[in-house]
Amino acid sequence: MTDLGAIVRDIAAEMAEATERGTVADYIAPLKAIDLARFGIALVTADGACHAAGAADEPFSIQSISKVFTLTLALGRVGDQLWQRVGREPSGTAFNSIVQLETEHGIPRNPFINAGAIVVSDMILAGHRPSEAIGEIVRFVRGLAGDEAIYVDESVARAEQASGYRNAALANYMAAFGNVRRPVEETLGVYVHHCAIAMSCRQLALAGRYLMAGGINPETGRRIVSQRRARRINALMLTCGHYDGSGEFAFRVGLPGKSGVGGGILAIAPGRAAIAVWSPGLNERGNSQLGTLALERLVQRTGWSVFEPAEDA
Amino acid sequence: MTDLGAIVRDIAAEMAEATERGTVADYIAPLKAIDLARFGIALVTADGACHAAGAADEPFSIQSISKVFTLTLALGRVGDQLWQRVGREPSGTAFNSIVQLETEHGIPRNPFINAGAIVVSDMILAGHRPSEAIGEIVRFVRGLAGDEAIYVDESVARAEQASGYRNAALANYMAAFGNVRRPVEETLGVYVHHCAIAMSCRQLALAGRYLMAGGINPETGRRIVSQRRARRINALMLTCGHYDGSGEFAFRVGLPGKSGVGGGILAIAPGRAAIAVWSPGLNERGNSQLGTLALERLVQRTGWSVFEPAEDA
Amino acid sequence: MTDLGAIVRDIAAEMAEATERGTVADYIAPLKAIDLARFGIALVTADGACHAAGAADEPFSIQSISKVFTLTLALGRVGDQLWQRVGREPSGTAFNSIVQLETEHGIPRNPFINAGAIVVSDMILAGHRPSEAIGEIVRFVRGLAGDEAIYVDESVARAEQASGYRNAALANYMAAFGNVRRPVEETLGVYVHHCAIAMSCRQLALAGRYLMAGGINPETGRRIVSQRRARRINALMLTCGHYDGSGEFAFRVGLPGKSGVGGGILAIAPGRAAIAVWSPGLNERGNSQLGTLALERLVQRTGWSVFEPAEDA
Amino acid sequence: MTDLGAIVRDIAAEMAEATERGTVADYIAPLKAIDLARFGIALVTADGACHAAGAADEPFSIQSISKVFTLTLALGRVGDQLWQRVGREPSGTAFNSIVQLETEHGIPRNPFINAGAIVVSDMILAGHRPSEAIGEIVRFVRGLAGDEAIYVDESVARAEQASGYRNAALANYMAAFGNVRRPVEETLGVYVHHCAIAMSCRQLALAGRYLMAGGINPETGRRIVSQRRARRINALMLTCGHYDGSGEFAFRVGLPGKSGVGGGILAIAPGRAAIAVWSPGLNERGNSQLGTLALERLVQRTGWSVFEPAEDA
Repeated sequence: MTDLGAIVRDIAAEMAEATERGTVADYIAPLKAIDLARFGIALVTADGACHAAGAADEPFSIQSISKVFTLTLALGRVGDQLWQRVGREPSGTAFNSIVQLETEHGIPRNPFINAGAIVVSDMILAGHRPSEAIGEIVRFVRGLAGDEAIYVDESVARAEQASGYRNAALANYMAAFGNVRRPVEETLGVYVHHCAIAMSCRQLALAGRYLMAGGINPETGRRIVSQRRARRINALMLTCGHYDGSGEFAFRVGLPGKSGVGGGILAIAPGRAAIAVWSPGLNERGNSQLGTLALERLVQRTGWSVFEPAEDA
Repeated sequence: MTDLGAIVRDIAAEMAEATERGTVADYIAPLKAIDLARFGIALVTADGACHAAGAADEPFSIQSISKVFTLTLALGRVGDQLWQRVGREPSGTAFNSIVQLETEHGIPRNPFINAGAIVVSDMILAGHRPSEAIGEIVRFVRGLAGDEAIYVDESVARAEQASGYRNAALANYMAAFGNVRRPVEETLGVYVHHCAIAMSCRQLALAGRYLMAGGINPETGRRIVSQRRARRINALMLTCGHYDGSGEFAFRVGLPGKSGVGGGILAIAPGRAAIAVWSPGLNERGNSQLGTLALERLVQRTGWSVFEPAEDA
Repeated sequence: MTDLGAIVRDIAAEMAEATERGTVADYIAPLKAIDLARFGIALVTADGACHAAGAADEPFSIQSISKVFTLTLALGRVGDQLWQRVGREPSGTAFNSIVQLETEHGIPRNPFINAGAIVVSDMILAGHRPSEAIGEIVRFVRGLAGDEAIYVDESVARAEQASGYRNAALANYMAAFGNVRRPVEETLGVYVHHCAIAMSCRQLALAGRYLMAGGINPETGRRIVSQRRARRINALMLTCGHYDGSGEFAFRVGLPGKSGVGGGILAIAPGRAAIAVWSPGLNERGNSQLGTLALERLVQRTGWSVFEPAEDA
Repeated sequence: MTDLGAIVRDIAAEMAEATERGTVADYIAPLKAIDLARFGIALVTADGACHAAGAADEPFSIQSISKVFTLTLALGRVGDQLWQRVGREPSGTAFNSIVQLETEHGIPRNPFINAGAIVVSDMILAGHRPSEAIGEIVRFVRGLAGDEAIYVDESVARAEQASGYRNAALANYMAAFGNVRRPVEETLGVYVHHCAIAMSCRQLALAGRYLMAGGINPETGRRIVSQRRARRINALMLTCGHYDGSGEFAFRVGLPGKSGVGGGILAIAPGRAAIAVWSPGLNERGNSQLGTLALERLVQRTGWSVFEPAEDA
């Protein structure tokens, strides 16, 4: 039996020593100030045990990791019709590319690139005011984590809205094809606010539990999504969760995972654990440098890659 | 305990009734004649049991499935240097697209699109004559399957070579960047011959065993590749094994898999089974219509998706 | 000596009989209602004679033809620095394509595609309020034509602003690269208003005189631009004036020309005439079907193509 | 009356002093050795006078300039059907780009990019042996120039054929769409041989006379192409003759022109002159640095731009 607590602590200690820590995203002002030395990890197992180390309780901006939760919420509301407006193929391009939208008539490749997540926000917004939609998303995430302290960092939301020209371009472009249907500013308002949710590694790992447990929150026993949808969200995370670095993440780590430019990654080992790591320095593809390395080592030591036989099989 | 034999037989019976069977690839003359009604399935488990149904012993042209074996062989020969000449990201484009080669300076996105597999052939050819390289590949596949009857269908190889203008374009284009290094005709000769290998579902499932068993042929106990490489080949199959339908296959089936335009698919359930299916009708992305459906049903009934908790966990 | 009046009248008569008249642009509501049967032509020669026929005095929405005038105005203000923010190559793509902006870092290919003209509007706006910038453009065009009756059709401007998602996408995208510098809504406001200028063929031909006369308004003797700039604006009209139909227009007509989706075309025969044609039906590239045909016939009968020896040489 | 002889001599003298001379194309071995200091110019007027200066009688590799002559020859043979297999729009991309062929189904944008010229070669080859087709092209060019000394430089042809992977890629790619119809090696053989024709500036200017004279060889009075075709070839030279630098050439020089990577440019001043310049150093778009500058100065001093009023008008 592996001692997960020791593994998690060892990894945190190794990361503290790491010298190549990547670079902090510079296009969202409030994120620029964050100390490259930060690293946190939290791991929640199927039986509810939580192992954490480093800055595991320090909130950070989850950014694109929020797209996993909005996708889950939107699937619950509109069902598989969602896939008429968003694809489910890897894009092969950067997170904010606009090129494919032109040749593919305003249908984004998948719900994890910015364009796709904006369409998902547009769906959640339908029939509501922006503040209601944002409120609903935050309540959903709080419920998943079982923690009412989770909040939106308004300074991050404002900074992103003020400088979010590329997202505005994407949203307007899709509006031209009828694939953003609410007023563009409102849809973007929902989008930047859910990206600005702040969570700690511990909160994030807790929020991700339903994806390792076949769609059920293992603490409450409440079903969040059907087993089939949980499986499919995991599949999307694996093929599309790291933009044009998704293949590399699958190759090195071998777990469904979703990264954010705030330096967080949520990874799922089905049946075993939900894991959150955070370190603000990013690699050249915009994914957490040390977060990826930490997950790679975790998988090496636990044998949790979905691509290899279970250790105990 | 699930009765795998019954599941396999049920699926074969269901596929016999299916009405939407896709269309046979029309650009390789000898493949056009194949009966759309054919369907075969074979499944080899970790303990060596083999369950088969339908036309499981009828050889078909494995086409791009051979790329899994040539990748394995080339990794054994040149090691991780291979990745300096081939990427490991999903391409987001069709199997024979040339567009990315221009912007990415002759480095193909992954070893499973045609361009990538041609580079792998070029590596295997290095220092040999084409006939030697082809012989080596065939011997390797025979060894994996433990079956000396596996052969190259020369009529398929000739037909592909005669009409393979797109592959010739890809190879010449990469030669312009120095990423095909042997004479273009020789490299293409190796490529079309390994694509023309004929195997039955049973042979193919047997040949794929090392990928479910951490790199070891479970029958002989012989290590084919390191555990880490086996895991990584599986990761590549999952993210890139079905061209621009890879996301869809992961979403629906949730197993590493590699398809070929001959209508075959090799899928790997790590620790559990290697599975081969064959039905010549293709869907609009060029992957076997019924093969995909059969695997989707197999995974539903066995719970083998890599994206969900193990049934017995 | 050719009888230009007769030629112009003959062409108008022939166009009245034409059966293939193209289709009216459907994305700007007020333009949809315009009668496909309308056709007008006006031609002003170097010596000041004006020949007109058909609906030559009926105002229509000049749309992209206005880009010739805003380019002239902006060159006068910022000089050749303009070319640091806008290229001067044909785009090879549709008027509203966003693809090249991504690979070319927010620098549009030329000032006549929408993206390029938006940057030009942004330059004219610099340091002014939108209403001032619009006023300046309108006064400039009135001065060129010598006609104070020229006006902006506010209903067209409003319709375009309300549905101009693609232009908003382009402007936001360029803002992300720092190539739209004023508030995006203000820059777009200037852009849609100058596109909404309404002019008759007669007014348009008069406004274009400076381009046939080496940069001088031949009526007033006032220099509008240097001879060299007039020549260069003509060159841009020839290579880029008809979007991805520019090559075809040069091939068939052989004059510098700028089209608009309102169905107008301004063409320049250097040293000889400025010509305006109008017919609201567009061909598949978005250029006036009969306008192009009328110009082709005019050139055949006058020998005015820039690509052939002067008749009288 | 301008003294053309003096202008030509002055320009040659100025070019001898120029310090920024560009760089010699390095991908064709025999061209690499050519001295950057070389410059030649020759100008033939409508009345048959020839003015030359510098190395005007030194043969150089005309390379892509030959595409003007093969287009003329092919139009004579197949007529306007040619345009079903080749477009006439600027490509907006480099001379050897393959990207557009994929989206545009094997139809090259225009006859002056490599792909288009290869299709033209394929048309000339139809029904002949390669040596016959090459012989016909050489005889045609000799006839245009009235000089039997013009020859194919076999060392250049061989070097290009040996290293012409990109052209082989283009040809194979178009063969996949049925737009190269003869054996690929034969079509490429014709193509590299006509590119390897060696001519002096004087020979080239003489060969280009028909394009300034409405399609007639002014010396012999023999019609080479119809007036309309001569005009249209000029239009194509202006919009497409300098690859992705065509807009720039039109902007700066304002004459139909065709460049080659050997450093030559043939420019046409309709009704006035055919001009050939040569200097082996290329600018960043692959067009002769000093050749372009020399033509820009010539046009400034003669007022021959097609975009401005005739001096004597």
